[in-house]
Amino acid sequence: MGKLYGYECPVARTLDVIGERWTILILRDLFLQGPRRFQDFLNAHEGLGPNTLSNRLKSLETAGIVARHFYEDHPPRAEYRLTDKGESLRPVLEALRDWGINHA
Amino acid sequence: MGKLYGYECPVARTLDVIGERWTILILRDLFLQGPRRFQDFLNAHEGLGPNTLSNRLKSLETAGIVARHFYEDHPPRAEYRLTDKGESLRPVLEALRDWGINHA
Repeated sequence: MGKLYGYECPVARTLDVIGERWTILILRDLFLQGPRRFQDFLNAHEGLGPNTLSNRLKSLETAGIVARHFYEDHPPRAEYRLTDKGESLRPVLEALRDWGINHA
Repeated sequence: MGKLYGYECPVARTLDVIGERWTILILRDLFLQGPRRFQDFLNAHEGLGPNTLSNRLKSLETAGIVARHFYEDHPPRAEYRLTDKGESLRPVLEALRDWGINHA
C-alpha cells in the first residue's frame, strides 16, 4: 500500500503496513487458523473480493509479513503463512482482541 | 462507521469502532497531545479533509470514545477529549507504536 501517513511516527508506520481495510482480519485468520489458501480467506469474509484480497496479500508479502508456500499437487496450490516478522504482530492483534472483548 | 466486519469476533468489533482510515491517528493525537480542536487535527494531517475528519469525530463521539467540550469564547470553541472509554484504547495504541519502532 502507499505511504499514506508518512514515516515520522511509529504508529503511522505500523498503519502503513497493516492499516488497510481487511488486512488485520487476514492476519487474524492466520493467527487463529494457521496457514490458509487464497480461497479460504475469500470463504471467510463475505465482503472481501478477490482483487482486494490479492492486493492485501501482495502487500503483506512485500512487507515480509506473510510468505507463500507452494505444494506439488494437481493443480498446484499455494498456502499463505505468517513469517517470523508476521508473528511479531501478535501483541497488536491481542490488544485489538482484548479491547473488543471488554469494550466493543 | 458501518458494521463492516460483523460482530462475532472481538478483533472485528474493535475494527468496527477504530478501523477506518485516519481514526487511529486522530486517537494518537489525543493521547500524545491532549484535548484538540477540530482545526488542530486538520493542521496535523495534510491528507485529512474536513468532511472525513468530521465523520471520524462523530463516529468516535457516538462510540463514547471522544467527547466535545464547549468553551464560552468569542467565537465559541469546542475541544475534543478522550473519555475513559477512549483512554482504555491506550494498549492498542502502544502495541501499534511498539511494532512500528521495532519492525516498520
